[in-house]
Amino acid sequence: MTDTASYTPPKVWTWNKSNGGRFANINRPIAGPTHDKDLPVGRHPLQLYSLATPNGVKVTVLLEELLALGHAGAEYDAWLIRINEGDQFGSGFVAVNPNSKIPALMDRSGPEPVRVFESGAILLYLAEKFGAFLPADPAKRAEVFSWLFWQMGSAPYLGGGFGHFYAYAPSKIEYAIDRFTMEVKRQLDVLDRRLAESPYLGGAEYSIADMAVWPWYGALAKGLLYEDSGTFLQVDEYKHVQRWTDAIAERPAVQRGRMVNRVMGELSSQLHERHEASDFETKTQDKLQAAD
Amino acid sequence: MTDTASYTPPKVWTWNKSNGGRFANINRPIAGPTHDKDLPVGRHPLQLYSLATPNGVKVTVLLEELLALGHAGAEYDAWLIRINEGDQFGSGFVAVNPNSKIPALMDRSGPEPVRVFESGAILLYLAEKFGAFLPADPAKRAEVFSWLFWQMGSAPYLGGGFGHFYAYAPSKIEYAIDRFTMEVKRQLDVLDRRLAESPYLGGAEYSIADMAVWPWYGALAKGLLYEDSGTFLQVDEYKHVQRWTDAIAERPAVQRGRMVNRVMGELSSQLHERHEASDFETKTQDKLQAAD
Repeated sequence: MTDTASYTPPKVWTWNKSNGGRFANINRPIAGPTHDKDLPVGRHPLQLYSLATPNGVKVTVLLEELLALGHAGAEYDAWLIRINEGDQFGSGFVAVNPNSKIPALMDRSGPEPVRVFESGAILLYLAEKFGAFLPADPAKRAEVFSWLFWQMGSAPYLGGGFGHFYAYAPSKIEYAIDRFTMEVKRQLDVLDRRLAESPYLGGAEYSIADMAVWPWYGALAKGLLYEDSGTFLQVDEYKHVQRWTDAIAERPAVQRGRMVNRVMGELSSQLHERHEASDFETKTQDKLQAAD
Repeated sequence: MTDTASYTPPKVWTWNKSNGGRFANINRPIAGPTHDKDLPVGRHPLQLYSLATPNGVKVTVLLEELLALGHAGAEYDAWLIRINEGDQFGSGFVAVNPNSKIPALMDRSGPEPVRVFESGAILLYLAEKFGAFLPADPAKRAEVFSWLFWQMGSAPYLGGGFGHFYAYAPSKIEYAIDRFTMEVKRQLDVLDRRLAESPYLGGAEYSIADMAVWPWYGALAKGLLYEDSGTFLQVDEYKHVQRWTDAIAERPAVQRGRMVNRVMGELSSQLHERHEASDFETKTQDKLQAAD
């Protein structure tokens, strides 16, 4: 590693494939597919291609919440995209999401399939489609929009900034860790102050804003995102975030949504693919256990 | 600066106020106001509190586009928030945006004022309010949503990642510059491939997705965001991004929107506050010139 004080960037940057940290094998300076591969298509109107990262969980939680409300049109097949194996660079996936990130959705309920990518876009698209978890009243709707977009602009500093430099980079760079830690603590305080005055981010009602923020900041508040980070960030100080995190975690739809496309952690928490509501039953876990 | 290879993070992070780089004075690990200060309110329905950074320009471009379409309800007062002087930490501003970032909007057209923060939320709110620059057709709308949210999730790697470590950090950290340069080049390639197949990001029509992306990636493509970065990133390679950037730059509403709340660059490009359409006339520039 070059001493940080002495480095001078070249006139023109070039790709050094050896210098990428834990995710070096999936980070590239070019877009587009690396190989031909079609995506599977199941029998439901909605086809989700995802993985149970925080961005993936946002969407499966919303889908399970919609089904719990009785929206049968929200039935979905959730297919596993193993990002560490490069599934997101297959031609079929790139056609659904040219940005090669999970989650990506195809809505096949209409005459022509509709693609939606970016977790926030998928939440908004589904909330509008089913008229749920997004208020129609302009003031309430504006508040949900504000916190939904707050998540989109903030979490890159958490996942791509703090998480990368604190947990994944090949060496610990003090300046970078310090920069992103300060921002993440500020973000937690923004949430804590909001949740001191309001049960949910958008107001009195649980909404897609909560579903967007919870998988990132709720997990962070419980010290689950990065080892030792709970103590490092002193997450217990954020009492209102803790209360809100716990309340959402108790929702049965959230508990189901967290399991979908999960390939890490306890085996009982993993449902690699989801095609039917009955897939959550224990026998399915047994099948997985036998197959793994 | 600590040698990067030898640093071990402490158990509990503490705030070192001397270690923040160029923006150390405005970055804090806590949220909330630092001082009492009301915001000014003008006579128009929409009150914008902003600065002509890329995030600020998104909104003034949309407002000028709406006015150009004849939506008189989009008349606005644009007030200057000097972020380097801490205006975003005044109590009045924090009440509109608890995240203390520009832009922030108050819509005073209804019985109760409505706050909206986060540039993407403001774009979406205004596009819905006026029924413009956001298609109603679900497939077209989904594509606009996807690219709008793409911008929100991507630009932090450009501004908070690449820009910070390439241009603003107190020393040049090779690993961090390399990490974010690779991602920014990938993002430019994502856009370039999309714009090879489509005139605008959402499809055949100019939309809020273009207005969100252009102030960041159009400026980047012209080498305007960070000194020497055009050559470093080889931005001329992205031909379709160049074509799209030029086409949008020619729009009169975009040219007006770029001037609003601008306090840097050529004096003729600066309109510190905007209260009337006539403020863009040259005589206003002359007044500013005399006053500065």
